Amino acid sequence: MTRTRRSPALTVPLEIQAQSLLEVDTSGPGFTEITRELQAFLTEIAADQGLLTVFCRHTSASLTIQENADPDVQRDLLMALDDLAPRDRGWVHDTEGPDDMPAHVRTLLCDTALTIPVLEGRARLGTWQGVYLLEHRDRPHRRELVLGFLGRARRR
Amino acid sequence: MTRTRRSPALTVPLEIQAQSLLEVDTSGPGFTEITRELQAFLTEIAADQGLLTVFCRHTSASLTIQENADPDVQRDLLMALDDLAPRDRGWVHDTEGPDDMPAHVRTLLCDTALTIPVLEGRARLGTWQGVYLLEHRDRPHRRELVLGFLGRARRR
Amino acid sequence: MTRTRRSPALTVPLEIQAQSLLEVDTSGPGFTEITRELQAFLTEIAADQGLLTVFCRHTSASLTIQENADPDVQRDLLMALDDLAPRDRGWVHDTEGPDDMPAHVRTLLCDTALTIPVLEGRARLGTWQGVYLLEHRDRPHRRELVLGFLGRARRR
Repeated sequence: MTRTRRSPALTVPLEIQAQSLLEVDTSGPGFTEITRELQAFLTEIAADQGLLTVFCRHTSASLTIQENADPDVQRDLLMALDDLAPRDRGWVHDTEGPDDMPAHVRTLLCDTALTIPVLEGRARLGTWQGVYLLEHRDRPHRRELVLGFLGRARRR
Repeated sequence: MTRTRRSPALTVPLEIQAQSLLEVDTSGPGFTEITRELQAFLTEIAADQGLLTVFCRHTSASLTIQENADPDVQRDLLMALDDLAPRDRGWVHDTEGPDDMPAHVRTLLCDTALTIPVLEGRARLGTWQGVYLLEHRDRPHRRELVLGFLGRARRR
Repeated sequence: MTRTRRSPALTVPLEIQAQSLLEVDTSGPGFTEITRELQAFLTEIAADQGLLTVFCRHTSASLTIQENADPDVQRDLLMALDDLAPRDRGWVHDTEGPDDMPAHVRTLLCDTALTIPVLEGRARLGTWQGVYLLEHRDRPHRRELVLGFLGRARRR
Protein backbone atom coordinates (compact mmCIF):
# COMPACT_ATOMS: atom_id res chain seq x y z
CA MET A 1 0.00 0.00 0.00
CA THR A 2 1.72 3.14 -1.22
CA ARG A 3 1.13 6.48 0.43
CA THR A 4 1.85 9.81 -1.20
CA ARG A 5 1.25 13.42 -0.17
CA ARG A 6 1.67 16.44 -2.41
CA SER A 7 1.98 20.11 -1.49
CA PRO A 8 -0.21 22.70 -3.27
CA ALA A 9 1.49 23.87 -6.48
CA LEU A 10 3.27 27.22 -6.45
CA THR A 11 2.59 28.88 -9.83
CA VAL A 12 4.50 31.98 -10.93
CA PRO A 13 5.34 33.68 -14.24
CA LEU A 14 8.07 32.33 -16.51
CA GLU A 15 10.14 35.29 -17.64
CA ILE A 16 13.87 34.94 -18.27
CA GLN A 17 16.54 32.49 -19.30
CA ALA A 18 20.32 32.62 -18.87
CA GLN A 19 23.32 30.63 -20.12
CA SER A 20 26.94 30.51 -19.01
CA LEU A 21 29.94 28.35 -19.94
CA LEU A 22 31.75 26.66 -17.03
CA GLU A 23 35.24 25.31 -17.73
CA VAL A 24 36.60 22.69 -15.34
CA ASP A 25 40.19 21.42 -15.28
CA THR A 26 40.15 17.79 -14.16
CA SER A 27 43.18 15.93 -12.82
CA GLY A 28 42.46 12.47 -14.24
CA PRO A 29 39.78 9.90 -13.34
CA GLY A 30 37.39 10.92 -10.61
CA PHE A 31 34.86 13.38 -9.28
CA THR A 32 35.07 17.19 -9.25
CA GLU A 33 32.29 18.83 -7.25
CA ILE A 34 30.66 21.80 -9.00
CA THR A 35 27.73 22.47 -6.63
CA ARG A 36 29.27 25.78 -5.50
CA GLU A 37 29.82 26.95 -9.09
CA LEU A 38 26.18 26.19 -9.95
CA GLN A 39 24.95 28.18 -6.97
CA ALA A 40 27.25 31.11 -7.93
CA PHE A 41 25.61 31.13 -11.38
CA LEU A 42 22.13 31.27 -9.81
CA THR A 43 23.24 34.11 -7.52
CA GLU A 44 24.79 36.10 -10.39
CA ILE A 45 21.56 36.08 -12.38
CA ALA A 46 19.42 36.63 -9.26
CA ALA A 47 17.43 33.47 -10.02
CA ASP A 48 14.20 33.09 -8.06
CA GLN A 49 12.12 30.06 -9.16
CA GLY A 50 12.76 27.84 -12.19
CA LEU A 51 14.88 25.05 -13.65
CA LEU A 52 18.69 24.81 -13.59
CA THR A 53 20.22 22.81 -16.46
CA VAL A 54 23.77 21.48 -16.79
CA PHE A 55 25.15 19.98 -20.02
CA CYS A 56 28.53 18.25 -20.58
CA ARG A 57 29.98 18.84 -24.06
CA HIS A 58 32.10 15.66 -24.09
CA THR A 59 31.75 11.92 -24.81
CA SER A 60 34.35 10.82 -22.24
CA ALA A 61 33.17 12.68 -19.13
CA SER A 62 29.79 12.67 -17.36
CA LEU A 63 27.67 14.51 -14.82
CA THR A 64 26.19 12.92 -11.71
CA ILE A 65 24.47 13.82 -8.45
CA GLN A 66 25.98 11.83 -5.59
CA GLU A 67 26.51 11.74 -1.84
CA ASN A 68 28.73 14.61 -0.73
CA ALA A 69 29.69 13.28 2.70
CA ASP A 70 32.10 10.32 2.61
CA PRO A 71 34.99 10.32 0.06
CA ASP A 72 35.01 6.51 0.18
CA VAL A 73 31.77 6.59 -1.83
CA GLN A 74 33.65 8.09 -4.77
CA ARG A 75 36.37 5.46 -4.58
CA ASP A 76 33.76 2.69 -4.60
CA LEU A 77 31.88 4.28 -7.51
CA LEU A 78 35.07 4.31 -9.60
CA MET A 79 35.60 0.65 -8.72
CA ALA A 80 32.03 -0.10 -9.84
CA LEU A 81 32.64 1.66 -13.16
CA ASP A 82 35.84 -0.36 -13.64
CA ASP A 83 33.76 -3.52 -13.16
CA LEU A 84 30.99 -2.39 -15.53
CA ALA A 85 33.23 -0.98 -18.29
CA PRO A 86 36.61 -2.73 -17.98
CA ARG A 87 39.73 -1.76 -19.95
CA ASP A 88 40.66 -5.27 -21.01
CA ARG A 89 37.42 -6.21 -22.75
CA GLY A 90 39.00 -6.49 -26.21
CA TRP A 91 37.41 -3.33 -27.59
CA VAL A 92 37.67 -2.77 -31.35
CA HIS A 93 38.04 1.01 -30.94
CA ASP A 94 41.40 1.43 -29.17
CA THR A 95 43.34 3.92 -31.28
CA GLU A 96 42.97 6.62 -28.62
CA GLY A 97 44.26 4.41 -25.80
CA PRO A 98 42.92 1.71 -23.46
CA ASP A 99 40.98 4.26 -21.39
CA ASP A 100 39.02 5.66 -24.35
CA MET A 101 36.38 3.03 -25.11
CA PRO A 102 35.62 2.38 -21.40
CA ALA A 103 35.06 6.16 -21.20
CA HIS A 104 32.42 6.01 -23.94
CA VAL A 105 30.64 3.10 -22.21
CA ARG A 106 30.61 5.11 -18.97
CA THR A 107 29.05 8.12 -20.69
CA LEU A 108 26.35 5.75 -22.00
CA LEU A 109 25.60 4.59 -18.43
CA CYS A 110 25.98 7.93 -16.59
CA ASP A 111 24.42 11.34 -17.38
CA THR A 112 25.39 13.93 -19.99
CA ALA A 113 22.76 16.43 -18.80
CA LEU A 114 21.10 17.31 -15.49
CA THR A 115 17.95 19.28 -14.65
CA ILE A 116 17.53 20.60 -11.10
CA PRO A 117 14.58 22.63 -9.73
CA VAL A 118 15.31 26.05 -8.20
CA LEU A 119 13.21 27.74 -5.48
CA GLU A 120 13.87 31.06 -3.75
CA GLY A 121 17.21 31.28 -5.51
CA ARG A 122 18.56 27.90 -4.34
CA ALA A 123 18.98 24.58 -6.20
CA ARG A 124 16.55 22.20 -4.45
CA LEU A 125 19.16 19.48 -3.88
CA GLY A 126 18.67 17.04 -1.01
CA THR A 127 20.79 17.33 2.14
CA TRP A 128 23.33 14.76 0.98
CA GLN A 129 23.34 15.59 -2.74
CA GLY A 130 26.28 17.22 -4.49
CA VAL A 131 26.68 17.79 -8.25
CA TYR A 132 29.83 16.33 -9.81
CA LEU A 133 31.73 16.28 -13.08
CA LEU A 134 33.02 12.74 -13.54
CA GLU A 135 36.23 12.48 -15.60
CA HIS A 136 36.57 9.10 -17.35
CA ARG A 137 39.97 9.58 -19.06
CA ASP A 138 43.38 8.87 -17.47
CA ARG A 139 44.92 12.24 -18.26
CA PRO A 140 43.80 15.68 -17.01
CA HIS A 141 41.37 17.45 -19.34
CA ARG A 142 39.76 20.85 -19.64
CA ARG A 143 36.02 20.20 -19.78
CA GLU A 144 33.27 22.55 -20.95
CA LEU A 145 29.86 22.57 -19.23
CA VAL A 146 26.92 24.72 -20.36
CA LEU A 147 24.86 26.04 -17.43
CA GLY A 148 21.32 27.24 -18.09
CA PHE A 149 18.38 28.66 -16.16
CA LEU A 150 14.74 28.95 -17.23
CA GLY A 151 12.46 30.80 -14.83
CA ARG A 152 11.99 34.03 -12.99
CA ALA A 153 14.55 36.43 -11.54
CA ARG A 154 14.15 38.42 -8.33
CA ARG A 155 13.32 42.10 -8.70
CA ARG A 156 16.40 44.27 -8.17
CA MET B 1 18.96 3.58 -45.01
CA THR B 2 17.19 5.46 -42.24
CA ARG B 3 13.80 7.05 -42.72
CA THR B 4 12.41 9.82 -40.56
CA ARG B 5 9.26 11.95 -40.71
CA ARG B 6 8.57 15.00 -38.59
CA SER B 7 5.27 16.78 -37.92
CA PRO B 8 5.06 20.58 -38.31
CA ALA B 9 6.10 22.30 -35.08
CA LEU B 10 3.38 23.63 -32.79
CA THR B 11 4.61 26.95 -31.37
CA VAL B 12 2.80 28.67 -28.50
CA PRO B 13 3.69 31.22 -25.80
CA LEU B 14 5.68 30.24 -22.71
CA GLU B 15 3.97 31.81 -19.72
CA ILE B 16 3.95 30.07 -16.36
CA GLN B 17 5.87 27.68 -14.16
CA ALA B 18 4.77 25.66 -11.14
CA GLN B 19 6.45 23.53 -8.47
CA SER B 20 5.11 21.04 -5.97
CA LEU B 21 6.69 18.63 -3.48
CA LEU B 22 5.58 14.99 -3.73
CA GLU B 23 6.37 12.74 -0.76
CA VAL B 24 6.33 9.00 -1.35
CA ASP B 25 6.52 6.33 1.38
CA THR B 26 8.33 3.31 -0.03
CA SER B 27 8.17 -0.18 1.44
CA GLY B 28 11.73 -1.34 0.71
CA PRO B 29 13.44 -2.23 -2.58
CA GLY B 30 11.30 -1.87 -5.68
CA PHE B 31 9.12 0.28 -7.87
CA THR B 32 6.37 2.70 -6.83
CA GLU B 33 4.36 4.06 -9.75
CA ILE B 34 3.78 7.82 -9.60
CA THR B 35 2.23 8.41 -13.06
CA ARG B 36 -1.16 9.22 -11.53
CA GLU B 37 0.34 11.72 -9.08
CA LEU B 38 2.15 13.50 -11.93
CA GLN B 39 -1.06 13.79 -13.93
CA ALA B 40 -2.91 15.12 -10.84
CA PHE B 41 -0.27 17.88 -10.58
CA LEU B 42 -0.78 18.83 -14.24
CA THR B 43 -4.54 18.90 -13.73
CA GLU B 44 -4.30 21.04 -10.57
CA ILE B 45 -2.32 23.75 -12.37
CA ALA B 46 -4.44 23.44 -15.56
CA ALA B 47 -1.32 22.74 -17.62
CA ASP B 48 -1.77 23.00 -21.37
CA GLN B 49 1.53 22.63 -23.32
CA GLY B 50 5.03 22.51 -21.84
CA LEU B 51 7.60 20.40 -20.00
CA LEU B 52 7.01 18.33 -16.85
CA THR B 53 10.10 17.82 -14.66
CA VAL B 54 10.60 15.36 -11.80
CA PHE B 55 13.59 15.47 -9.44
CA CYS B 56 14.55 12.95 -6.72
CA ARG B 57 16.23 14.56 -3.68
CA HIS B 58 18.11 11.40 -2.63
CA THR B 59 21.30 9.48 -3.44
CA SER B 60 19.86 6.03 -2.72
CA ALA B 61 16.64 6.13 -4.77
CA SER B 62 16.08 6.81 -8.50
CA LEU B 63 13.46 7.69 -11.06
CA THR B 64 12.74 5.64 -14.18
CA ILE B 65 10.21 5.27 -16.97
CA GLN B 66 9.39 1.61 -17.53
CA GLU B 67 6.80 -0.79 -18.89
CA ASN B 68 3.58 -0.59 -16.87
CA ALA B 69 2.00 -3.88 -18.00
CA ASP B 70 3.72 -6.99 -16.62
CA PRO B 71 4.90 -7.01 -12.95
CA ASP B 72 7.52 -9.63 -13.88
CA VAL B 73 9.43 -6.85 -15.65
CA GLN B 74 10.02 -5.15 -12.31
CA ARG B 75 11.23 -8.37 -10.70
CA ASP B 76 13.70 -8.90 -13.54
CA LEU B 77 14.92 -5.29 -13.38
CA LEU B 78 15.71 -5.69 -9.65
CA MET B 79 17.61 -8.89 -10.51
CA ALA B 80 19.57 -7.00 -13.17
CA LEU B 81 20.47 -4.27 -10.65
CA ASP B 82 21.62 -6.94 -8.18
CA ASP B 83 23.93 -8.28 -10.90
CA LEU B 84 25.26 -4.84 -11.85
CA ALA B 85 25.71 -3.48 -8.32
CA PRO B 86 26.10 -6.49 -6.00
CA ARG B 87 26.17 -6.28 -2.20
CA ASP B 88 29.18 -8.53 -1.71
CA ARG B 89 31.64 -6.57 -3.85
CA GLY B 90 33.92 -5.64 -0.94
CA TRP B 91 32.93 -1.96 -0.88
CA VAL B 92 35.05 0.37 1.26
CA HIS B 93 32.02 2.49 2.25
CA ASP B 94 29.91 0.11 4.36
CA THR B 95 29.19 1.98 7.59
CA GLU B 96 25.54 2.48 6.65
CA GLY B 97 24.93 -1.20 5.88
CA PRO B 98 25.51 -3.64 3.00
CA ASP B 99 22.67 -2.12 0.95
CA ASP B 100 24.05 1.44 1.03
CA MET B 101 26.94 1.41 -1.45
CA PRO B 102 24.99 -0.69 -4.01
CA ALA B 103 22.28 1.99 -3.72
CA HIS B 104 24.77 4.73 -4.68
CA VAL B 105 25.98 2.70 -7.68
CA ARG B 106 22.36 2.25 -8.78
CA THR B 107 21.70 6.02 -8.59
CA LEU B 108 24.77 6.49 -10.81
CA LEU B 109 23.30 4.11 -13.41
CA CYS B 110 19.62 5.13 -13.17
CA ASP B 111 18.05 8.62 -13.34
CA THR B 112 17.80 11.30 -10.66
CA ALA B 113 15.73 13.62 -12.87
CA LEU B 114 13.16 13.17 -15.66
CA THR B 115 11.80 15.60 -18.27
CA ILE B 116 8.52 14.71 -20.02
CA PRO B 117 6.71 16.76 -22.68
CA VAL B 118 3.11 17.83 -22.01
CA LEU B 119 0.48 18.48 -24.69
CA GLU B 120 -3.18 19.41 -24.17
CA GLY B 121 -2.77 18.88 -20.45
CA ARG B 122 -1.43 15.32 -20.65
CA ALA B 123 2.08 13.93 -20.19
CA ARG B 124 3.04 12.57 -23.64
CA LEU B 125 4.09 9.14 -22.34
CA GLY B 126 3.98 6.17 -24.69
CA THR B 127 1.22 3.57 -24.34
CA TRP B 128 3.36 1.24 -22.22
CA GLN B 129 5.29 3.85 -20.25
CA GLY B 130 4.76 4.45 -16.53
CA VAL B 131 6.84 6.71 -14.27
CA TYR B 132 8.33 5.04 -11.19
CA LEU B 133 10.24 5.89 -8.05
CA LEU B 134 12.82 3.14 -7.55
CA GLU B 135 13.80 2.51 -3.91
CA HIS B 136 17.33 1.07 -3.58
CA ARG B 137 17.51 0.66 0.23
CA ASP B 138 16.31 -2.39 2.19
CA ARG B 139 14.14 -0.47 4.65
CA PRO B 140 11.08 1.68 3.92
CA HIS B 141 11.87 5.36 3.38
CA ARG B 142 9.96 8.60 2.97
CA ARG B 143 11.23 10.10 -0.31
CA GLU B 144 10.88 13.67 -1.54
CA LEU B 145 10.34 14.41 -5.24
CA VAL B 146 10.12 17.93 -6.68
CA LEU B 147 7.59 18.21 -9.52
CA GLY B 148 7.87 21.13 -11.93
CA PHE B 149 6.10 22.47 -15.00
CA LEU B 150 7.31 25.06 -17.50
CA GLY B 151 4.81 26.09 -20.16
CA ARG B 152 1.35 27.45 -20.68
CA ALA B 153 -1.82 26.99 -18.65
CA ARG B 154 -5.33 26.74 -20.05
CA ARG B 155 -7.53 29.81 -19.71
CA ARG B 156 -9.98 29.44 -16.85
CA MET C 1 43.39 21.55 -6.61
CA THR C 2 40.49 22.12 -8.97
CA ARG C 3 40.34 25.12 -11.25
CA THR C 4 37.16 26.44 -12.81
CA ARG C 5 36.34 29.51 -14.90
CA ARG C 6 32.87 30.71 -15.79
CA SER C 7 31.78 33.15 -18.49
CA PRO C 8 29.40 36.01 -17.59
CA ALA C 9 25.78 34.84 -17.86
CA LEU C 10 23.81 35.81 -20.95
CA THR C 11 20.26 36.63 -19.80
CA VAL C 12 17.43 37.07 -22.31
CA PRO C 13 13.62 36.84 -22.25
CA LEU C 14 11.83 33.48 -22.27
CA GLU C 15 9.02 33.72 -24.79
CA ILE C 16 7.97 30.69 -26.80
CA GLN C 17 7.79 26.92 -26.78
CA ALA C 18 7.38 24.45 -29.62
CA GLN C 19 6.74 20.71 -29.97
CA SER C 20 7.06 18.32 -32.90
CA LEU C 21 6.77 14.54 -33.30
CA LEU C 22 9.73 12.81 -34.98
CA GLU C 23 9.16 9.28 -36.26
CA VAL C 24 12.22 7.12 -36.88
CA ASP C 25 12.22 3.76 -38.64
CA THR C 26 14.97 1.61 -37.14
CA SER C 27 16.47 -1.45 -38.79
CA GLY C 28 17.12 -3.58 -35.71
CA PRO C 29 19.66 -3.20 -32.88
CA GLY C 30 21.93 -0.19 -33.13
CA PHE C 31 22.30 3.56 -33.42
CA THR C 32 20.39 5.96 -35.68
CA GLU C 33 21.81 9.48 -35.67
CA ILE C 34 19.16 12.21 -35.37
CA THR C 35 21.38 15.29 -34.90
CA ARG C 36 20.42 16.66 -38.32
CA GLU C 37 16.68 16.21 -37.62
CA LEU C 38 17.01 18.08 -34.31
CA GLN C 39 18.78 20.98 -36.01
CA ALA C 40 16.09 21.08 -38.73
CA PHE C 41 13.46 21.46 -35.99
CA LEU C 42 15.38 24.38 -34.44
CA THR C 43 15.70 26.00 -37.86
CA GLU C 44 11.98 25.57 -38.66
CA ILE C 45 10.92 27.39 -35.49
CA ALA C 46 13.69 30.00 -35.85
CA ALA C 47 14.99 29.12 -32.37
CA ASP C 48 17.47 31.61 -30.91
CA GLN C 49 18.42 30.81 -27.27
CA GLY C 50 16.83 28.17 -25.03
CA LEU C 51 16.58 24.47 -24.23
CA LEU C 52 16.04 21.62 -26.71
CA THR C 53 14.30 18.54 -25.26
CA VAL C 54 14.01 15.05 -26.78
CA PHE C 55 11.76 12.33 -25.35
CA CYS C 56 11.52 8.66 -26.41
CA ARG C 57 7.99 7.21 -26.07
CA HIS C 58 9.16 3.58 -25.72
CA THR C 59 10.47 1.17 -23.06
CA SER C 60 12.69 -0.80 -25.44
CA ALA C 61 14.63 2.00 -27.17
CA SER C 62 16.78 4.79 -25.71
CA LEU C 63 18.41 8.11 -26.50
CA THR C 64 22.11 8.83 -26.08
CA ILE C 65 24.75 11.40 -26.98
CA GLN C 66 27.89 9.67 -28.25
CA GLU C 67 31.01 10.11 -30.37
CA ASN C 68 30.11 10.73 -34.02
CA ALA C 69 33.50 9.95 -35.57
CA ASP C 70 34.44 6.26 -35.50
CA PRO C 71 31.72 3.61 -36.26
CA ASP C 72 33.72 1.08 -34.22
CA VAL C 73 32.59 2.96 -31.10
CA GLN C 74 28.99 1.94 -31.80
CA ARG C 75 29.96 -1.69 -32.30
CA ASP C 76 31.79 -1.70 -28.96
CA LEU C 77 28.90 0.00 -27.17
CA LEU C 78 26.50 -2.71 -28.37
CA MET C 79 28.98 -5.33 -27.12
CA ALA C 80 29.08 -3.56 -23.74
CA LEU C 81 25.27 -3.58 -23.54
CA ASP C 82 25.26 -7.31 -24.36
CA ASP C 83 27.62 -7.84 -21.42
CA LEU C 84 25.57 -5.69 -19.03
CA ALA C 85 22.12 -6.96 -20.04
CA PRO C 86 22.60 -10.46 -21.51
CA ARG C 87 19.86 -12.46 -23.21
CA ASP C 88 20.55 -15.71 -21.39
CA ARG C 89 20.15 -14.43 -17.82
CA GLY C 90 17.08 -16.55 -17.10
CA TRP C 91 14.63 -13.65 -17.11
CA VAL C 92 11.12 -14.35 -15.80
CA HIS C 93 9.51 -11.98 -18.35
CA ASP C 94 10.17 -13.67 -21.70
CA THR C 95 6.78 -13.88 -23.41
CA GLU C 96 7.76 -11.20 -25.95
CA GLY C 97 10.99 -12.93 -26.94
CA PRO C 98 14.57 -13.22 -25.64
CA ASP C 99 15.42 -9.66 -26.72
CA ASP C 100 12.59 -8.02 -24.76
CA MET C 101 13.74 -8.10 -21.12
CA PRO C 102 17.36 -7.13 -22.04
CA ALA C 103 15.76 -4.16 -23.85
CA HIS C 104 14.01 -3.03 -20.65
CA VAL C 105 17.26 -3.32 -18.66
CA ARG C 106 19.01 -1.21 -21.31
CA THR C 107 16.35 1.53 -21.08
CA LEU C 108 16.93 1.55 -17.30
CA LEU C 109 20.67 2.13 -17.86
CA CYS C 110 20.49 4.51 -20.85
CA ASP C 111 18.43 7.72 -21.30
CA THR C 112 14.75 8.14 -22.16
CA ALA C 113 15.01 11.94 -22.33
CA LEU C 114 17.70 14.47 -23.28
CA THR C 115 18.02 18.21 -22.61
CA ILE C 116 20.45 20.22 -24.77
CA PRO C 117 21.16 23.99 -24.54
CA VAL C 118 20.62 26.11 -27.67
CA LEU C 119 22.48 29.34 -28.49
CA GLU C 120 22.17 31.48 -31.61
CA GLY C 121 19.93 28.86 -33.16
CA ARG C 122 22.34 25.92 -32.75
CA ALA C 123 22.36 23.00 -30.30
CA ARG C 124 25.48 23.53 -28.17
CA LEU C 125 26.83 20.00 -28.69
CA GLY C 126 30.55 19.39 -28.38
CA THR C 127 32.68 18.82 -31.49
CA TRP C 128 32.49 15.03 -31.23
CA GLN C 129 28.93 14.72 -29.93
CA GLY C 130 26.08 13.31 -32.01
CA VAL C 131 22.54 12.52 -30.80
CA TYR C 132 21.34 8.96 -31.39
CA LEU C 133 18.24 6.83 -31.08
CA LEU C 134 19.36 3.44 -29.77
CA GLU C 135 17.14 0.51 -30.82
CA HIS C 136 17.27 -2.39 -28.34
CA ARG C 137 14.93 -4.86 -30.10
CA ASP C 138 16.00 -7.39 -32.77
CA ARG C 139 13.36 -6.40 -35.32
CA PRO C 140 12.93 -3.05 -37.07
CA HIS C 141 10.53 -0.69 -35.29
CA ARG C 142 8.86 2.66 -35.95
CA ARG C 143 9.81 4.85 -32.97
CA GLU C 144 8.18 8.10 -31.84
CA LEU C 145 10.26 10.91 -30.37
CA VAL C 146 8.79 14.15 -29.03
CA LEU C 147 11.00 17.18 -29.75
CA GLY C 148 10.53 20.33 -27.69
CA PHE C 149 12.00 23.81 -27.41
CA LEU C 150 11.65 26.32 -24.59
CA GLY C 151 13.20 29.73 -25.21
CA ARG C 152 13.23 32.65 -27.57
CA ALA C 153 12.78 32.78 -31.33
CA ARG C 154 14.59 35.13 -33.69
CA ARG C 155 12.59 38.09 -35.00
CA ARG C 156 11.36 37.46 -38.54
